[in-house]
Amino acid sequence: MNADKIPDIIIGRLPVYLRALQRMQEKGMKTTSSQELGEHVGISAAQIRKDISQFGEFGKQGTGYSIPFLIDKLREILKVNRMWDVVVVGVGDMGHALARYPGFLNRGFRVAMIFDVDSSKVGQKVGEFMVEDSSKLVERVRNAKIKMAMVTVPAAAAQEVADKLVQAGVKAILNYAPTSINVPNHVHVQYIDPSTHLQRMTYYLE
Amino acid sequence: MNADKIPDIIIGRLPVYLRALQRMQEKGMKTTSSQELGEHVGISAAQIRKDISQFGEFGKQGTGYSIPFLIDKLREILKVNRMWDVVVVGVGDMGHALARYPGFLNRGFRVAMIFDVDSSKVGQKVGEFMVEDSSKLVERVRNAKIKMAMVTVPAAAAQEVADKLVQAGVKAILNYAPTSINVPNHVHVQYIDPSTHLQRMTYYLE
Repeated sequence: MNADKIPDIIIGRLPVYLRALQRMQEKGMKTTSSQELGEHVGISAAQIRKDISQFGEFGKQGTGYSIPFLIDKLREILKVNRMWDVVVVGVGDMGHALARYPGFLNRGFRVAMIFDVDSSKVGQKVGEFMVEDSSKLVERVRNAKIKMAMVTVPAAAAQEVADKLVQAGVKAILNYAPTSINVPNHVHVQYIDPSTHLQRMTYYLE
Repeated sequence: MNADKIPDIIIGRLPVYLRALQRMQEKGMKTTSSQELGEHVGISAAQIRKDISQFGEFGKQGTGYSIPFLIDKLREILKVNRMWDVVVVGVGDMGHALARYPGFLNRGFRVAMIFDVDSSKVGQKVGEFMVEDSSKLVERVRNAKIKMAMVTVPAAAAQEVADKLVQAGVKAILNYAPTSINVPNHVHVQYIDPSTHLQRMTYYLE
């Protein structure tokens, strides 16, 4: 297996498979087929088999996939068979929601620190966290060796925050600010912008 | 132009171009080039030219694109040269954040109603909205002819909510619940799940 050669589009589907398998496991299921998994995630059975076979032979002809086994394998491939600390920058409504979001822990993530530039917010409690001053971000994040961040600041502040995060050694940024950010090649960025998602659908509406 | 033939991957990039152009306009810029736009969004100039040329000749060799003209065209193509009402279902932290999110209005969207199944939340004010009872959802959404929804309920409730929305005539669902949902072919779904986005990046981390 040569990880570098697997297209990112396939990597992007693995978390969706993993999520569906975890839901199946919660429901007490032990095995599944590419057909059944496909119905859950809206992807063809052939595509799922092809995607998963990139990483090895994880299923058996006739008996399908062992759910706990495939979960373990996908968690290993995606490197979420460990816990990743994530820092949240920007404590508006969205930052609040993320700091208190219960859906990270069983997916491999733990919010570790939250920052805001607004001195009236610094020191406030959000969930179990004390909001820290953004001026301390680079030092704090670097010392804690945190590699992941979620950015929920206004668009105009996003690039400056991204620059600080890169300086602090962060390697993966999930950007909620409604703007593109520029980072060095070795830093990964994903975007969440509800308006962008909605606009992708209105194109198809009457 | 035959809209049906344009790949969805291209449609998915148009909102990103539009967002960058709107940011440029806010900064007072009047014209741009595919090169400059590409630097903003992290996509090659050639790709941008190719994507945009699917819809017509909107730029001029040598002088580039008029920003207000290209904004108008993209808004027209994406059908956000009008305002779309959107309903929010589920008033947890994320539902709160979306109901109060200021980033919809200049992108073509307006939250119109919010619903929750929890009777202790019904009647509460969130932003400028009164939380309504989910039992009224089908009737209310159908009567108001709302075609778009954002779902921020727990995973276990997502399918039932999606079914109700489809029944009410909704044609586009932005699903924040961390699970896939099944809808008829004529209904569009986009997913926002921060854990899925984060897992897509951990794959590449050491």
